[in-house]
Amino acid sequence: MCAKRSLQRNFFLLFIIGLVLGSSALAATEGAATETGVHSYASTLFWMAILLLFGKFASLVERIGQPSVLGELVIGVALGNLTLLGITAFESAEADPLLRFLAELGVIILLFQIGLESNIQKMGKVGIPAFLVAAVGVVVPFVLGTYVVGPYLLPGLTSQAYLFLGAALTATSVGITARVFKDLGKLQTPEAQIVLGAAVIDDVIGLVILAVVSAIATAGTVSAGVIALITGKAVFFLIGSIVLGVLLAPWLGWIFSTIHTGVGMKFTLAITFGLLLAAAAQEIGLAPIVGAFAAGLVLDPVHFRYFQDFHVVDDVRAAIKGSDPALQRRVQEAIKPHAERHIEYLIEPLGHFLVPLFFVMTGMSVNLLTLFDPSIILVALGVTIVAFVGKIVAGLAAGKRARKWLVGWGMVPRGEVGLIFATIGRGLGVVTDELFSVIVIVVILTTLLTPPILAFQLRGTK
Amino acid sequence: MCAKRSLQRNFFLLFIIGLVLGSSALAATEGAATETGVHSYASTLFWMAILLLFGKFASLVERIGQPSVLGELVIGVALGNLTLLGITAFESAEADPLLRFLAELGVIILLFQIGLESNIQKMGKVGIPAFLVAAVGVVVPFVLGTYVVGPYLLPGLTSQAYLFLGAALTATSVGITARVFKDLGKLQTPEAQIVLGAAVIDDVIGLVILAVVSAIATAGTVSAGVIALITGKAVFFLIGSIVLGVLLAPWLGWIFSTIHTGVGMKFTLAITFGLLLAAAAQEIGLAPIVGAFAAGLVLDPVHFRYFQDFHVVDDVRAAIKGSDPALQRRVQEAIKPHAERHIEYLIEPLGHFLVPLFFVMTGMSVNLLTLFDPSIILVALGVTIVAFVGKIVAGLAAGKRARKWLVGWGMVPRGEVGLIFATIGRGLGVVTDELFSVIVIVVILTTLLTPPILAFQLRGTK
Repeated sequence: MCAKRSLQRNFFLLFIIGLVLGSSALAATEGAATETGVHSYASTLFWMAILLLFGKFASLVERIGQPSVLGELVIGVALGNLTLLGITAFESAEADPLLRFLAELGVIILLFQIGLESNIQKMGKVGIPAFLVAAVGVVVPFVLGTYVVGPYLLPGLTSQAYLFLGAALTATSVGITARVFKDLGKLQTPEAQIVLGAAVIDDVIGLVILAVVSAIATAGTVSAGVIALITGKAVFFLIGSIVLGVLLAPWLGWIFSTIHTGVGMKFTLAITFGLLLAAAAQEIGLAPIVGAFAAGLVLDPVHFRYFQDFHVVDDVRAAIKGSDPALQRRVQEAIKPHAERHIEYLIEPLGHFLVPLFFVMTGMSVNLLTLFDPSIILVALGVTIVAFVGKIVAGLAAGKRARKWLVGWGMVPRGEVGLIFATIGRGLGVVTDELFSVIVIVVILTTLLTPPILAFQLRGTK
Repeated sequence: MCAKRSLQRNFFLLFIIGLVLGSSALAATEGAATETGVHSYASTLFWMAILLLFGKFASLVERIGQPSVLGELVIGVALGNLTLLGITAFESAEADPLLRFLAELGVIILLFQIGLESNIQKMGKVGIPAFLVAAVGVVVPFVLGTYVVGPYLLPGLTSQAYLFLGAALTATSVGITARVFKDLGKLQTPEAQIVLGAAVIDDVIGLVILAVVSAIATAGTVSAGVIALITGKAVFFLIGSIVLGVLLAPWLGWIFSTIHTGVGMKFTLAITFGLLLAAAAQEIGLAPIVGAFAAGLVLDPVHFRYFQDFHVVDDVRAAIKGSDPALQRRVQEAIKPHAERHIEYLIEPLGHFLVPLFFVMTGMSVNLLTLFDPSIILVALGVTIVAFVGKIVAGLAAGKRARKWLVGWGMVPRGEVGLIFATIGRGLGVVTDELFSVIVIVVILTTLLTPPILAFQLRGTK
């Protein structure tokens, strides 16, 4: 047994060393394949495989009770900072536009999956607390960031820079929190539903703020009319797509099934619905994940009833035909919850294929060198505390029936949206490199600290 | 009933019109979203959805007994040539590098799937006939193309141009043929196995010829040593990856399962194996699909035995525990073939997601305008006849136990590889625009005519 263990460990070590060496060798020969004039995807295919493998190795953190998303982030940070040790191979993965696209597609698929697992009636039930949590969770961090910690801890910047800092603190990264709830099987709790609803709402509010702040930074000022237009567009999109979706989805299911009732058509109906709403959201200036989530929310098992089920389920049903009725009922009961989730099972491999790329690459974009400047770290810690406090306070608005602390902690992670805000601000020349580093550190800390805290609190639940 | 039908037809028409109008509107606003400095994927997401939808609509051809791949190709040709009617919206889809990548990933997934459905023992059984078919199917079209129809039908070109014409006629597009066999459920017949084996072998030979011909075109001449090097590399890769895979796969399954036994890990093990071999194949100058096919060939259900099964299967097994032994056996029998194909089921959604993109986009790259020049058409028809004859003759080498005509017809389609050859030749300045058009028409005709002929012949089989 012990020999087997050590064999396994040695094999594993060799495998990792082989991967890193192989990566370096590949990076060195890159470009050679393009000589023939055909575009070579060898490097992209290679990196997809490597990042997926490392992401899955990181699921070892489940052994110590942590959600696997944390492992993916941490291994991403490690891989992205191997340059500090002189291993530059992973830089080409970070810079690959195709991988960035696949990662983005991954987070769209993730939000679509989460939407599929949520359902509109349940979301409606938590509508008011979710809205209150979102509103408080936007206003408190924005005000604290723009008017308190910004000017106090980072004196001498423009007022527009503080506006960007405040804005970057508003949007919850629903991806991280949702993965934690999903990893621990708690997506159906009222707290998870409130957090998801609030995260979508504050994403919308956050993106409105971003649009307004960007307009101020470019034009110097902005009219109330423009603010109203941006806001209206966002609200109209969300409500519109949900209403339209609820009206259209049953029809679409029927129409598509008259063309073909196969599993392929069932899958295509679902995924294209998600992609189209994601594209529409981005087209009108919202994050595509908002559209993907709305699409998943609208789709329900009932819309797919005209299509074929799992083939194995059909065969099992045929095999038990005519047997003891009590047994038949028992088998049907065992099948039912799975048959209802068939569309989720069909989307799941896409998730396994693309979602880890997003989290590993998010980790890779973190530069550990920024952590070596003590003054920046102190400022960042101050801003992080504000970021935590602002969202935990928001949890208090969750109403009586939900556990307020759990909701508050669930709202803490700032991920991709905060980073997008910081990047845009730097592009506009408003956010200094110093402020950018601070925002990045805040995003790292809120993202890395929340999953274990949340997992700890959730483990206390029945 | 009739009212329902016409309602459906009207709805459908409106839907298509809506799609085309929406596409045009989107194309017009393109670039607007990039103003904010964030990269917008809205256009790519939108086109993915539209191409998938049109691809699935085209599965209507199954109603008239044709494989759905033909529908995808034809609808691609139609969409790609809407410019002739003044509708330019689809041009941006054709030019999108992200979509091209996804399409390429699609054909890699397809060959991986086909490899998974094949198995190495069976392939070994058809090894000799497959090799003979491949060899004849390369030599005959190459000689006929380079020394007969080239100089005779297209006089006045350089000898290098004829070399490229001959080379472009060598490689069978295994994707098309495999899809036809797969669509009709005939992948397990000896004919399909011979065609698949031969297509992989002639792909390898074809790529060697391409490398040699390119070397001649650039350097004017090439040494026997270089030819030997290129050939050796290809043979070494295929044999090496299969031997290594067969030795390593059982170990890898065990090692990975000690990290995690979940479905996600099972999926990741399979897909990364496919991606890595595809990357390796491309890295040494072969087509990535060769590597993906080899990976699928190596992987067998037995390598995944340490991992979790379908959740629904586990639950059904629990439900029938303790019941009538005869019934238990019956249910187990019903489950078994599905459980063995679990990994194929997990890869299937990736196929539904990406494979249609490849075939629709291959169709889109066809320019119908080239068909309006009578002299080019005549030459192309002549070359097409040679292309047909060369491969049907190859079928005669299939040995006694296989139906020779079926094998011969199965080898006819020239698809992506022929187009790649033509593109490279044009890039080197050897292939003229005229010759390029001819090669494109040959690819279209062999690709469009073969599926119905093959389907007709296969329908004759039990």
